[in-house]
Parts: sequence; structure tokens; C-alpha cells
Amino acid sequence: MTRAVRAAAEVGLAGLLVTPGPDMMWLCGHRPTAVTQRLTLLVLIPGSEPRLLVPALERPDAEAAPGAGALRISDWSDGQDPYAAATGLLLPNGRYGVCDTTWALHLLGLQEALPLTTYRPLTVVLPLLRAVKDEHEVARLAAAGAAADAAYEELLSVRFTGRRETDVAADLAHLLREHGHSQVDFTMVASGPNSANALHEPGARIIEHGDTVVVAFAGLKDGYGSALARTVHVGEPTEDEHTAHDLVRTAQQAAFEAVAPGVPCQDIARRARRVIEDADHGSYVAHRTGHGTGITTDEPPYVVEGNETLLAPGMCFSIGPGVYLPGRFGVQIEDVVTCTADGGRRLNPTDRGMAIVE
Amino acid sequence: MTRAVRAAAEVGLAGLLVTPGPDMMWLCGHRPTAVTQRLTLLVLIPGSEPRLLVPALERPDAEAAPGAGALRISDWSDGQDPYAAATGLLLPNGRYGVCDTTWALHLLGLQEALPLTTYRPLTVVLPLLRAVKDEHEVARLAAAGAAADAAYEELLSVRFTGRRETDVAADLAHLLREHGHSQVDFTMVASGPNSANALHEPGARIIEHGDTVVVAFAGLKDGYGSALARTVHVGEPTEDEHTAHDLVRTAQQAAFEAVAPGVPCQDIARRARRVIEDADHGSYVAHRTGHGTGITTDEPPYVVEGNETLLAPGMCFSIGPGVYLPGRFGVQIEDVVTCTADGGRRLNPTDRGMAIVE
Repeated sequence: MTRAVRAAAEVGLAGLLVTPGPDMMWLCGHRPTAVTQRLTLLVLIPGSEPRLLVPALERPDAEAAPGAGALRISDWSDGQDPYAAATGLLLPNGRYGVCDTTWALHLLGLQEALPLTTYRPLTVVLPLLRAVKDEHEVARLAAAGAAADAAYEELLSVRFTGRRETDVAADLAHLLREHGHSQVDFTMVASGPNSANALHEPGARIIEHGDTVVVAFAGLKDGYGSALARTVHVGEPTEDEHTAHDLVRTAQQAAFEAVAPGVPCQDIARRARRVIEDADHGSYVAHRTGHGTGITTDEPPYVVEGNETLLAPGMCFSIGPGVYLPGRFGVQIEDVVTCTADGGRRLNPTDRGMAIVE
Repeated sequence: MTRAVRAAAEVGLAGLLVTPGPDMMWLCGHRPTAVTQRLTLLVLIPGSEPRLLVPALERPDAEAAPGAGALRISDWSDGQDPYAAATGLLLPNGRYGVCDTTWALHLLGLQEALPLTTYRPLTVVLPLLRAVKDEHEVARLAAAGAAADAAYEELLSVRFTGRRETDVAADLAHLLREHGHSQVDFTMVASGPNSANALHEPGARIIEHGDTVVVAFAGLKDGYGSALARTVHVGEPTEDEHTAHDLVRTAQQAAFEAVAPGVPCQDIARRARRVIEDADHGSYVAHRTGHGTGITTDEPPYVVEGNETLLAPGMCFSIGPGVYLPGRFGVQIEDVVTCTADGGRRLNPTDRGMAIVE
């Protein structure tokens, strides 16, 4: 919290307003049992002790949070106006950083209660608040990555042909839990033409011999995130499928090799994109190249055109380019990588080739 | 969507801005696979066709949504500014209703792109948008309630003594799924002194003979919500425990009997509270009396002091008063009720007595 407040002051903020979610968990350890319309607000203001405003019935949980000893906790009760209660903790004309995920209900409540306050999203004004991981955090991310690799490798032995996408997705979720994941955010199994949809949700489609299958997933192990994507094939791929897979693999490798301290995030994205564009597949790119990982599986730094954030040692993020040929098939290969003083280090060293499954 | 736009116009809004979540699901059937920092926005403006702005990679899913035929879909790609894309869909000085849960990131992006627009939370400006259920919806809520009752009744036969709270909570979640729940929002099992914490999260505490145990849960069956709380006892209760349970049961019954069209929500809350205050237990009340249920398990109308919303036939909500004696024990009894022309009808008719468990 001390470091966060210092960072806020450095960018000219009067303070940070944090609602339930990963930022609150990371800053003070408090995680309400549910995120509801009831306002829970951590207020960090330079020079003041951290304040946590909670609904009265959440107070016992807040007092049991790991960081509670460093907080002054106050509460409001159902029937009271929580925004009026919050005003006492804020400067009436301050400029605050607020969590990206803070509900509009709460932001509008604060804006109405204190019309002279202004707000900026935390990932815009302090994108790197949680981005640089210390060695303990990198070790946890590496452990999550090893578990993801192991689950993927075991998945290659399960039967694909004749089973629904949802069946294989359930196998994958089960394997992730067996390998220590406490939370599975998603398990995508996109087969045949469905693989051309970068956000396909596994469905009742029966996987057939000859299908390209994109397998992608994310989850948490011991509080830190995994993110992995590989593209496999049921039986031998066609020449077109081989070509597309080689292309994505080359693009992923080129982007990985560009990782180094001081390199803008968008340069990593551009490196992957250039490979794909040079092969005239630029129109088949559907998404950014990657995203940060940490205590969540999707956070800054984003590896995307327009993000000029400079990489620094300790940043951890995915590199996951893909091409999606509508109506035909798609290919994605995604790894988590950490930036070190010497360049990139893969946290998912498992093979990136197009595995043949049955 | 037509009804929603009409309701928006009636309260002087230029339109409704809807981000992923229950409102979007209810209005157009689109449910992105994940809610992320990428903007997905349904724009409903009186006199214009409904517009849905989605990230390009979400487009295939959006086009497959049940309501897609009534939508004009446009997209933006990673690297583009989604708020610039949204401005073309909005009046530059309009006053919009926006989902309670819309991320601050998106609201601030829209406020910055169109500084003359103003925003109001949907539950403040149109609290009843989804509140009045038609007969099909009430039937689904009744089915979810029947499943909740059945799961609770079976839970009374499982062993409590000598097992952890988390074990009994897992049994409960399993029973809910067996009875058709596709989603379990929470299963609270709060035993002994933990039952005095209205938001207790089941933990490793071993349940003992003599414990009061609050069992509370919520989930979805066929897209509609259940919400139930009962207080059971391991072996015979003490006189104090009996007295507190009778008090809460009487309060719950009094509130239920007050349900009728035209009655303000806060009057239902007051009815319960008065019973508890008359018994000098007012200082042990920790939360509002209840909340709406529908396609979510926590929505308007809220049964709480200050809510002057008038009940109407078709509204469905919980009545769940409780008392919490710090360090000792707590009692809660919660049912879902629907308002009919003739008064309240319970959707959880299961017994409200203090069941004795082993």
C-alpha cells in the first residue's frame, strides 16, 4: 500500500480508490464473499493511513483480512447512503485513480456526492501498479505455467474423435485441477470450423478426424495465473493447415525473441504481426498478441498496437498470436513469458509443434 | 428491447447503455464468454434500431445471439479506441441509463469521449426494468424455489457433527446440482459462533453438538434464481436459541403478510424490523430484509429502509430477516416470495421451523 500510494502521488493523483477484486486482494488481502451493489471501498491517500469502508455486515471478514492491521476500518449499514459515508474519506476536489472494474453504480454515486472530484482508470493512469513481479511472484507464475504444461501434455492422450468439444473441455478442466489449479477461468476447445472463432465457447459439436482443434485455457494455481494455447490436429493436417501453423509458430517465436527491457509492448505485437502480414495472412488476425498475467489471468501490460509501455525485468505476459480463416480453421499458440535482464524467458516450455491427437 | 426503450423515454433518458451481464442477456441474449476490459456495448435509443458494438473477435458469438436478428452489430479491433467507436452511436449531450455493473474503465472512457453526456445507474433510474415478472418467469422462479427446498430437505439428513463447514457446504452444492441447478452462487454453512457473522464463508471449523447452524444459498436453475436461508440446530437448542429463532420466524411471517400490490418495499422491511425491535433485538440486525430475484439472485427490488418502490403483481423478492449475536450465534430465515393481486405467495414453502440435525 505504501508503494502504491507513492506511485499515485508521482502521477499527480490525490489518491487511489479500490473496490473488491484483484487490486484490493493484492493491496490489503480483503476479498468480500461476493461483489454486490453494496459499496466496499479502500481509500489510499498519500500522508494518511489507509481507510477501508465496508458494509456493516462485511466488517467481521474485513477485520480478518491479512492487511487489516494496517487499515482503519469504518462501516455503513443497509438503509444508509454509502456515498455520503465515503465523502468523509475523500478530498472534495481530488483526482483519483479508480479500479477498472469498479461498478458504474459506485463511480456515479461518488461523482454525485462529490461533483468536483475527477477519476481516472487505474490501468490507464498506473498501468504498471502490479505489472512488475518480484522473484517470488515469478516463481509462482512459473509453477502455474508448469502445471498448465503438464495438463496440456496429458490432454494429448485423451480421445478427441467422436467426442463433443464440451467433453474434451471437461477433461482439460479436470486435468488442470489435478495439477493444482484452484480456479479454471476458461477451457476453450474449438474444433474444425469452430476453431476459426477466436472466442469460441465449447459446444456440442462432435470432433472429427481431420479437424484442427485450438485448445486454450487459463486459471489460477496458488493465487497466480496460467495462460496457454496450442493448436492440435486430429490425424494428419493438410498442407494449408501445416502452413498456417508454421506461420503462427514463427510469429510467436519472433515476438518472443524481441522481448527485452526497454522494448515497447507494441513492438512485441508488431513483430508477430509483421511475420503474419508478410505471408499475406494479416486479414486473418483477430486479436491482440498478448496480455499480462499475475494474480489474474488478464491484466496489464497488454501486448497490443498502441501500448508504448516499456518492458521491464519482472513483467510477465502472454505472447499468443493467431490466425483465423473464417469457415475453415484457426491456429493459436500462446505462452506466458517473463522479461529478464537478458531477454525473454518462457514459463510454458512445452512443445509448440502441432501435436497429432486421436 | 422495445419495452425497455419506452421505459427509458418515459423517465427522460436519451437511451440505455448496456454492458455484458444479466441486463444484456435479458435484452438481446448476448453473453460474451468473458467480461474483460474490451468494450461490448448495447445501445438502445428511442426511435433508432438497437445497436451492438463488440470487439471484432466477439462478433461471431454476437451474431449467434438469440436477439441478433433485431440488432445492428458493429465491431472494433484491438489497437483501436473503442470509445471513439461508441461515440458514433450516441447523442453527444444525451443523458443515459447505464448498467450498475458497467466497469468504471468504460464509463470514464465514454465520459471522456463525450464530455457533455451524463449517466445514471439503471437500478436508480429504472429500478423496475426487470422487476415485474410475467407468468412464465414466475413459473421458472417457482421451479428454482422447489429445487432449493428439495436440496435443503435432503441436507437435513446429512451428518453435521464432526464435519467441517466446508464439507457440509460441498454436500449442499452437490444437492443443488442434483436438483437441476446449473449455477451455485454461494452455499453458506455458518456454525456455532460463526453463525453470528451474516457473511461467514464456510471454513475448516468442525461442527459440534450444540451448534446453531445458518444454512443459506443461492443459485440458478434454468436461468432463474433461487435464494433460501434456514437455521438448524445440532441437537436440542437452548432457550435463548429457541427464543431468537421464534423471533426471526415471527418477523419473517409479519413481513410476508404485509406483501400486497401498492405497498412500499421499505414497509416490508419495517414490518420485520419492528418485530425484532419490539423484542429488544434491534441492535442485532445486520442486513436489509431482502432482495429481488429473477435471472440473477440479487437485484431490485431491494427490501430495505429507504426504498419507496411500490410492490406490483409479478415482483419476486426474498424476505430474509436475521439476528446476529456477536460471539454467540445467529439466526436467519429467508424465502422467495412473489407479489400477487391477492398478496404474497411463497416460492419456498418448505418448513421454516428450526430443524434438528445430527
